[in-house]
Amino acid sequence: VTETHVHGYTDEKDAFVKRLHRIEGQVRGIERMLEEDRYCIEILTQISAVTTALESLALQLLDRHVRHCVAGAMASGDQAEIEEKTGELLAAVQRFAKTR
Amino acid sequence: VTETHVHGYTDEKDAFVKRLHRIEGQVRGIERMLEEDRYCIEILTQISAVTTALESLALQLLDRHVRHCVAGAMASGDQAEIEEKTGELLAAVQRFAKTR
Amino acid sequence: VTETHVHGYTDEKDAFVKRLHRIEGQVRGIERMLEEDRYCIEILTQISAVTTALESLALQLLDRHVRHCVAGAMASGDQAEIEEKTGELLAAVQRFAKTR
Amino acid sequence: VTETHVHGYTDEKDAFVKRLHRIEGQVRGIERMLEEDRYCIEILTQISAVTTALESLALQLLDRHVRHCVAGAMASGDQAEIEEKTGELLAAVQRFAKTR
Repeated sequence: VTETHVHGYTDEKDAFVKRLHRIEGQVRGIERMLEEDRYCIEILTQISAVTTALESLALQLLDRHVRHCVAGAMASGDQAEIEEKTGELLAAVQRFAKTR
Repeated sequence: VTETHVHGYTDEKDAFVKRLHRIEGQVRGIERMLEEDRYCIEILTQISAVTTALESLALQLLDRHVRHCVAGAMASGDQAEIEEKTGELLAAVQRFAKTR
Repeated sequence: VTETHVHGYTDEKDAFVKRLHRIEGQVRGIERMLEEDRYCIEILTQISAVTTALESLALQLLDRHVRHCVAGAMASGDQAEIEEKTGELLAAVQRFAKTR
Repeated sequence: VTETHVHGYTDEKDAFVKRLHRIEGQVRGIERMLEEDRYCIEILTQISAVTTALESLALQLLDRHVRHCVAGAMASGDQAEIEEKTGELLAAVQRFAKTR
């Protein structure tokens, strides 16, 4: 069983799942393009579209995360918790921005 | 009906489709994570993994495209064709590198 | 006259200025490479090195900003201030990750 | 002594050097902002501007490189040369797009 927690995205869960479902369909569309021997550049354009859609979703999740989880930790004044949330946040931004 | 062309990726089509199929599964996994109220940071990490997998695939497609389609155009000496292929290639790189 | 504020990076100001000074020298080095008609690929490699150095610096500034300014706002409980800091932070991440 | 070669960017060398010179000035401006204790977010915005300017320059250099050096190699029909130019080009795109 999965415990249920309330996260920053809880209110918008359905909308986020729907967006990912659409992205899943786009990926399936690219598989079909390859099978149909479509032109490389068209396929690359579609891959870019999927990547952009995923990053836009990630940015919104990050927004909800900062507004709820990070803000909550910082308001609590619990230093260990603040340290943990801040470290996690920056690691996520780093992966996201592909920066060392 | 779809015409069948030979593209840079034709030899490896099955491998590319298989990789996209795995990526499709990863996207479905993220939908499930949202439905199970998993922690935002874990979800962001998975989105990064998918984005990286897509970009790595795109880079390989680009490689095959340059080695076959672009090289072919440039070898042909057909100036209009060279111009077209070069323009397309650079637009793809630009989208890929998100640069203006 | 410039007012003096204490920012997240204040303690490390000298180190950050020194790093930027080195980056400035790298940019000057690229100018010289162009003037000496160096090979395009070598120049591109150097531009990548500068971009990476700048992004690494930006990420550290962002870290200090979150740990000091954002954490301070969130601890204060001032909702307008929290909203402002969070909005600014996410806009910075967005520019940084070049995501819409 | 530096040999003089003709590269893809030779005709526009002055314009490129001028742009880099402006970028160098922007980096110096950021050093000053740090010294004047300017707000982190303003500094991050300026770093983003420099990064964008560098990437835009890199993309134009890449364009000239493809149109001249790569096209030349591909037109020559020299397989070893084509292989070398293609490998270099894709490595540059990879660094540029920070993709593995």
